[in-house]
Amino acid sequence: MGSAPASAFLCIFVVLCSYVTVNGGYIKYNTGAGIVEGKLNVHLVPHSHDDVGWLKTIDQYYVGSNNSIQGACVENVLDSVVESLLRNQNRKFVFAEMAFFSRWWYEQSEEIQETVGKLVDGGRLEFINGGWCMHDEATVHYIDMIDQTTLGHRLIKKAFNKAPRAGWQIDPFGHSAVQAYLLGAELGFDSVHFARIDYQDRAKRKEDKSLEVIWRGSKTFGSTSQIFTNAFPVHYSPPNGFGFEIDDFSIPVQDNPHLFDYNVEQRINDFVAAALVQANVTRTDHIMWTMGDDFQYQYAETWFKQMDKLIHYVNKDGRVNALYSTPSMYVDAKHATNEEWPLKTHDYFPYADRINAYWTGYFTSRPALKRYVRMLSGYYLAARQLEFLAGRSSTGLNTFSLGDALGIAQHHDAVTGTAKQHTTNDYAKRLAIGASETEATVNSALSCIASKNSGQCAASTSSFSQCQLLNISFCPPTEEDIPEGKSLVVVAYNPLGWKRTEFVRIPVNDSDFVVQDSTGNTIEAQYLKVDNVTINLRNFYTKAYLGRSPKNVPKFWLLFQVSVPPLGWNTYFISKASGKESSRSGYISVMDSPQNESIEVGPGSLKMSFSSTTGQLERMFDSKTGVDLPIQQSYLWYGSSDGGLDSQPSGAYIFRPNGAPPTVVSRSVPLKVMRGPLVDEVHQEFSPWIYQVTRLYKDKDHAEVEFTIGPIPVDDSVGKEVITRMTANMVTNKVFYTDSSGRDFLKRVRDYREDWSLSVNQPEAGNYYPINLGIFTTDKKSEFSVLVDRATGGSSIKDGQVELMLHRRMIFDDSRGVGEALDETTCVENTCEGLTVRGNYYMSIDLLGDGAQWRRTTGQEIYSPLLLAFTHEKLETWTASHLTKGTVMEPNYSLPLNVAVITLQELDDGSVLLRLAHLYEAGEDAKYSTLAKVELQKMFRGKKIKEIRETNLSTNQEKSEMKTLKWKVEGDNGDEIAPLRGGPVDNSTLVVELGPMEIRTFLLEF
Amino acid sequence: MGSAPASAFLCIFVVLCSYVTVNGGYIKYNTGAGIVEGKLNVHLVPHSHDDVGWLKTIDQYYVGSNNSIQGACVENVLDSVVESLLRNQNRKFVFAEMAFFSRWWYEQSEEIQETVGKLVDGGRLEFINGGWCMHDEATVHYIDMIDQTTLGHRLIKKAFNKAPRAGWQIDPFGHSAVQAYLLGAELGFDSVHFARIDYQDRAKRKEDKSLEVIWRGSKTFGSTSQIFTNAFPVHYSPPNGFGFEIDDFSIPVQDNPHLFDYNVEQRINDFVAAALVQANVTRTDHIMWTMGDDFQYQYAETWFKQMDKLIHYVNKDGRVNALYSTPSMYVDAKHATNEEWPLKTHDYFPYADRINAYWTGYFTSRPALKRYVRMLSGYYLAARQLEFLAGRSSTGLNTFSLGDALGIAQHHDAVTGTAKQHTTNDYAKRLAIGASETEATVNSALSCIASKNSGQCAASTSSFSQCQLLNISFCPPTEEDIPEGKSLVVVAYNPLGWKRTEFVRIPVNDSDFVVQDSTGNTIEAQYLKVDNVTINLRNFYTKAYLGRSPKNVPKFWLLFQVSVPPLGWNTYFISKASGKESSRSGYISVMDSPQNESIEVGPGSLKMSFSSTTGQLERMFDSKTGVDLPIQQSYLWYGSSDGGLDSQPSGAYIFRPNGAPPTVVSRSVPLKVMRGPLVDEVHQEFSPWIYQVTRLYKDKDHAEVEFTIGPIPVDDSVGKEVITRMTANMVTNKVFYTDSSGRDFLKRVRDYREDWSLSVNQPEAGNYYPINLGIFTTDKKSEFSVLVDRATGGSSIKDGQVELMLHRRMIFDDSRGVGEALDETTCVENTCEGLTVRGNYYMSIDLLGDGAQWRRTTGQEIYSPLLLAFTHEKLETWTASHLTKGTVMEPNYSLPLNVAVITLQELDDGSVLLRLAHLYEAGEDAKYSTLAKVELQKMFRGKKIKEIRETNLSTNQEKSEMKTLKWKVEGDNGDEIAPLRGGPVDNSTLVVELGPMEIRTFLLEF
Repeated sequence: MGSAPASAFLCIFVVLCSYVTVNGGYIKYNTGAGIVEGKLNVHLVPHSHDDVGWLKTIDQYYVGSNNSIQGACVENVLDSVVESLLRNQNRKFVFAEMAFFSRWWYEQSEEIQETVGKLVDGGRLEFINGGWCMHDEATVHYIDMIDQTTLGHRLIKKAFNKAPRAGWQIDPFGHSAVQAYLLGAELGFDSVHFARIDYQDRAKRKEDKSLEVIWRGSKTFGSTSQIFTNAFPVHYSPPNGFGFEIDDFSIPVQDNPHLFDYNVEQRINDFVAAALVQANVTRTDHIMWTMGDDFQYQYAETWFKQMDKLIHYVNKDGRVNALYSTPSMYVDAKHATNEEWPLKTHDYFPYADRINAYWTGYFTSRPALKRYVRMLSGYYLAARQLEFLAGRSSTGLNTFSLGDALGIAQHHDAVTGTAKQHTTNDYAKRLAIGASETEATVNSALSCIASKNSGQCAASTSSFSQCQLLNISFCPPTEEDIPEGKSLVVVAYNPLGWKRTEFVRIPVNDSDFVVQDSTGNTIEAQYLKVDNVTINLRNFYTKAYLGRSPKNVPKFWLLFQVSVPPLGWNTYFISKASGKESSRSGYISVMDSPQNESIEVGPGSLKMSFSSTTGQLERMFDSKTGVDLPIQQSYLWYGSSDGGLDSQPSGAYIFRPNGAPPTVVSRSVPLKVMRGPLVDEVHQEFSPWIYQVTRLYKDKDHAEVEFTIGPIPVDDSVGKEVITRMTANMVTNKVFYTDSSGRDFLKRVRDYREDWSLSVNQPEAGNYYPINLGIFTTDKKSEFSVLVDRATGGSSIKDGQVELMLHRRMIFDDSRGVGEALDETTCVENTCEGLTVRGNYYMSIDLLGDGAQWRRTTGQEIYSPLLLAFTHEKLETWTASHLTKGTVMEPNYSLPLNVAVITLQELDDGSVLLRLAHLYEAGEDAKYSTLAKVELQKMFRGKKIKEIRETNLSTNQEKSEMKTLKWKVEGDNGDEIAPLRGGPVDNSTLVVELGPMEIRTFLLEF
Repeated sequence: MGSAPASAFLCIFVVLCSYVTVNGGYIKYNTGAGIVEGKLNVHLVPHSHDDVGWLKTIDQYYVGSNNSIQGACVENVLDSVVESLLRNQNRKFVFAEMAFFSRWWYEQSEEIQETVGKLVDGGRLEFINGGWCMHDEATVHYIDMIDQTTLGHRLIKKAFNKAPRAGWQIDPFGHSAVQAYLLGAELGFDSVHFARIDYQDRAKRKEDKSLEVIWRGSKTFGSTSQIFTNAFPVHYSPPNGFGFEIDDFSIPVQDNPHLFDYNVEQRINDFVAAALVQANVTRTDHIMWTMGDDFQYQYAETWFKQMDKLIHYVNKDGRVNALYSTPSMYVDAKHATNEEWPLKTHDYFPYADRINAYWTGYFTSRPALKRYVRMLSGYYLAARQLEFLAGRSSTGLNTFSLGDALGIAQHHDAVTGTAKQHTTNDYAKRLAIGASETEATVNSALSCIASKNSGQCAASTSSFSQCQLLNISFCPPTEEDIPEGKSLVVVAYNPLGWKRTEFVRIPVNDSDFVVQDSTGNTIEAQYLKVDNVTINLRNFYTKAYLGRSPKNVPKFWLLFQVSVPPLGWNTYFISKASGKESSRSGYISVMDSPQNESIEVGPGSLKMSFSSTTGQLERMFDSKTGVDLPIQQSYLWYGSSDGGLDSQPSGAYIFRPNGAPPTVVSRSVPLKVMRGPLVDEVHQEFSPWIYQVTRLYKDKDHAEVEFTIGPIPVDDSVGKEVITRMTANMVTNKVFYTDSSGRDFLKRVRDYREDWSLSVNQPEAGNYYPINLGIFTTDKKSEFSVLVDRATGGSSIKDGQVELMLHRRMIFDDSRGVGEALDETTCVENTCEGLTVRGNYYMSIDLLGDGAQWRRTTGQEIYSPLLLAFTHEKLETWTASHLTKGTVMEPNYSLPLNVAVITLQELDDGSVLLRLAHLYEAGEDAKYSTLAKVELQKMFRGKKIKEIRETNLSTNQEKSEMKTLKWKVEGDNGDEIAPLRGGPVDNSTLVVELGPMEIRTFLLEF
């Protein structure tokens, strides 16, 4: 056709014939719109959701490496956002994750830092949330939440003198009550915002216009710790077609009439339509568009340029009003409307994003990581105390890297177990480095404070070592031969505010030791043969982790009881008996041969009885309280769904059993009982891959259960999710209680939600709840409580039952992004096997109403175990130069049993951060749910408190200056009883009062 | 394992235990390195290769829409590059495509424009190439190259007062001799840089260190038009692992020791290693790294940040020296070394990027688009003349949109036929809009200059219309009934500098017209029945292109001879004969019934004879010259390869026959001969989809062949590449000649390359060359020449043969990015069929040595046909108010036949751009390869030339101020004969002299 083919356009495109020149001309966009009364206001909130590790490690995300996994670079985000904010003073941006921000901030020139300071001052760059990471809410302990938030908030305060006003938990997979009141209201936040709530809940709330509520997460505090809560109608991304990341598929606003595809009207119509859809499910004339997504704003201008145009043309159009905004501006606007809001109590667990997709697997996923985090959390608490006691930085060592690593590990893809394996390794590596540096800090600090010669503090020469692999019987200082004439010196530090008595267990090579206390008195010891399961673990995992297997294996566990003052230490000496058998102080545990049908164990008043035929637990009873509870315990596994008809497998996030009832691992269990004066142990091998030791200690009113699970077999191509199930003869009426982030206990009702009429599709997965402290059930007479040593999923699937999910291994990915099956293995050279997990849980039976005391006290002791340090020295030399026992407190002073020191830390500005927490809820315990008092003068013996300032939870605001927005709440008749709270601290008496559940935060100057 | 899993890192990562804080600290990078003598200098040249349309349209690329096809946004590139350049004064960036830059520039605020001005002044932003696009070199006519380059260069000159120094043809698929000397040296470029040369050539050049050469592309000009030429060793991207686009997989330089994965040493080692590899194939201590790729620098900071670090640490390392550079800095450095360079002549065609992958398919791909571009190119030339003659902007109409559209269409993925279909449609649409606006401009200008009343120029009321679909017999003004008493007025404008006589063919509905010339004399006319093939085409394509099919079809072509003065017009009047048969001036062509074995046709001295049995051409002979050549002509098709064993199909870029010999379409052809006084036509139907009309005109010494090809059948799943093959009885010794970009003729030798010993793998595809003007062969007596009407691939695969590839249709993509099979279709409603292509080629036989005259004169006439405009008016009324015949020149003055006016245009500043081109090469013709003279005073009658300035080709430099680098060339003994060039123009006589092949460019002020 030669010249013909295009001529057609002559007519077809005659409308475009005004096209004369490519010169478009500069357009100045009017983006200065504020709120317009009487119009629908669309608050555009520019944000980038930057996971502190997930598919890539935090540093890979920061520098933008490993892009073949995910194209993401937070350095680009911050660089380019600053540039874009400078281009237009109306633009705003909110940023949340301070672990990223700190990396960037310290790489900037002074000029950029100054510029950023101005942007923050001008409200153009606003920090929201502002913790080190956006922590998870199901698997994170409230103390870790506080610590990681404080780390971020203090950086913001220091660099910008600002305090974030909005909680921004947009991605975590469900939301805890503690988050609302403690990490919300008590931080001074006016609001919290998030995307993920149950899909049934969301549907109901859209219908009711109740996505936005006033949330009172605390039974104890009620309206005094409430927070405006904004659950997004869809997700934290913009409405479809309004995402403008570089290379995004959204259609840009093309407003140059001289180019083709001019589309201003079309895009404005799209905008108005999307706004009206959202307005339809939202109260008031204000809606928020979350203008961002994961790791977006890598080149921020792509977003801002489009938003500039949208604001300009939408407002010119006039049907709705669009403006640059932030969550705090949005909430202020909401508040100004004087609207009434629905009330929300309890929490937002569990979370399902669609049918059969309950995100309750991650409550347990990666149990070893979860334990490592929890263990180091307690260690970090103790280490900071010691750092403070010795005086910070006296040695150049500090605990920062552990705080940093723990801050990162609380991220909602870290401790949750939902990151890729290589990223998980990175978290572990950071924790290990932090632990290692902190160990040096602790060794040095212990040397310092225990030394009679204060010069010891300056020299960083400490001969102490510690044993992080004690749980698999690896502890070189206790295993080694004690040099001639010397003793093994064991220093135990107690980070609790009250005196405690515990049992120390260390691996040794012989059974002829003498154990002496700090005054030289020989004390009772018990030897227990190290079992083969532990020895095998030790051999494999020392090789896997340390690259070497020790030649010898210890023969015995040496067990002895120690007693340590509050915030203090005690010293024990272990020496070879001087040749003669009689001088041994120990008792070698004897193996029991069952004679009756039942075997009863327990050196104290608490007894457990086991069937000698099936080997199974039958009954727990306590002669002191008279509680007597028939109870059975067994291990079972849920077969993981392979996806089924709706292609939704069980995976790192999601727990979805395959529909079959859980398989009982063993109905008949080989049983071994070892008895002694300090502990009775019941060893049960449920299968070649499940081993359990139940311990009943002298003077302890609970059973300690040590489980060793793994490698979980998957050679049948079925993923397995292993639970321990305790079935008590109790009428529990569907009710059980689980903690919220390790703090409050919430009532759970099986197959029921308070906020909507639940369609039960997943009778197991949909009844799982996160457990950080414990779970308990009650009947008319008694309570049955179980405490955990890490974050765990648990439930009560049938009346009388309590189950904990302890380990999971699967072969499918659950399609929520991580792209890997949760199939943890450990390798030695070329041999890999499924990860074995060892841990403890604790069981107690109590009279109805008495359980809280055990749960609160024991819970705190589990979180904060004794810190042990070892060295070798001649007993006399040691005692001559050291205080073998001591406390920072006045002698005989102790914190009340309902108060814990949850932070005691010397900050980098020299001030001391003290957080005291009342451990009981209102009404939880007759004796302890009362006003408690702490006398600071007695607590810090010999130190003069020059100044005390009470602050909000994260120390970035004076308590007295905190402002709270008042909200109108539907059905609120004002008849709530005011909660008990401590009064202001008198500067002379320095007595701190704490009401139930109260946490008070102080900055002290000594 | 509880707490164990991470503890391992304690030891493994002990090296990292110095990790204390995330505070990295600001690093100021030293990026100010210049060239260091005695070291290997790595010139980092930041660039973004931005195709002016390819997978997306130019505007989609500019605004970043349609990203699902390709994530690319040039607006981002320019926005972010400016930001990045401002951050560090050492950074540099080069930009090439002014069609993009102009879009951006006119959208910027004055502040940004000023800032950019400073960046350009400071050499931080440098324009290279600087044309509207990076034109193709195989399928683009040199006049289009000049026009599109001028468009860009004038913008740069106007905005920044700068002239680009470097040619940057990095992506075009082979390189033409005309590019080197005309669009290189004659533009004032010091160098040209590109990535694509034949893979065998490249291997040889790497071995010889002859990638960089001095290229003398012109036989005529030799060293006086040479250019330093840099063929890249790999591609125009950086060495592997050094690309840093956002989300790139390259490992970033991680130099913060406080983060993980610190890798400075590793990356510097990588850098040095890559530099040494390149140094190994490069002369001197300077190598260039092209730091960019397609549409990269969308967020420029990602690149510059890494380059800052690389320069800083590489130079600290000291083994090599890295610096920010540009092609011109690089070439200056090369020049300063005083090195000797290899000499290169001829061109770089054809291009193969690997075995069996000759990029010779695109010489023909999309023949309809190629013709549309060529047709509008000639039209644009004529239109600008008329615009100038009438006075620019007198009506508000102008030719800019056509110039813009043509500038874009010369892009190396546009006219090449290698863009996606939707992008190709966009090119066609732009051309159509441009043509439409230009048509209005032309109509108005013609009305103005032909009017006796000069007031006519102001009013944009022109009753003229033109017929762009004349080739398929669609022309409403000639088809319509002529209103009673009126005539059809036909104005023919001649854009050539010499008088010409041509035949006008228009469709009419009857055969009873009288044709009168401008003085009212009746002239001879011939009617030819419109054949059915044309009628079917007309019906389908008017419907497809215009959305409607005219009810009636014209019965006849009316043919008459017109004669038009140089740069002038003539008017013809066609009226209904006044009732009586006798008053008709026409002759209805008669159908010939063959009586002999041979049928001889031709009204003049040139005759062709056809076999009356096979219908095939047998012989051409000319009684005037005595040349008598047995010659056969047939259509064949190559079956396209489906990829074969090495997965390389034939496609839009690549011509790869499937190995079988080409299939002859028909050995026996139905033949129809129509004769008349003005033309004899031979109609041959080679197949239902190949129709050919051969025309021999009175007074024309060549045959015009009109081919109609399509729809090419592919229902056998074999792609087909259709050729016409002419086999003359000539001993050609492998030699044939093809033009370079429509200008010089280059000698081609089958299966041979001048620069290396060719491995022949593709005996057909590897011998194809681009043709824009023509192809010819010679033997000892005569020349056989073929001229084309558009860009076409052609070759001589056997001695005596000449073939042209005229159309291609395929079913596979050839894996070079476009991602579509070249399978053009046209649709009417839901009926689609393969595209039919109609066009012409021209054959001439001449005595040896005489062919150039025909080729040069006829070539120019084909490129610049008469421009026809139609209206209806009473003859007397028209002649009363109009000059029916006229010229801008002095009466009887004519430009010499060896000179063409290739540009005559009033510029937007009121000055007039005049380009005159000598049409002959040195030695090409005894009579015409001589100094030619143009007398400007006679050329512009009645206009006074106030000022004349001679400039370089693109008008951005005064000729007198152009600087040229001198180069040392291997084997250059200085014995070259100086070419003939015209002397300076005397301001009083105003005579322009032109030596062979000389193009002289002037800016005139009248």
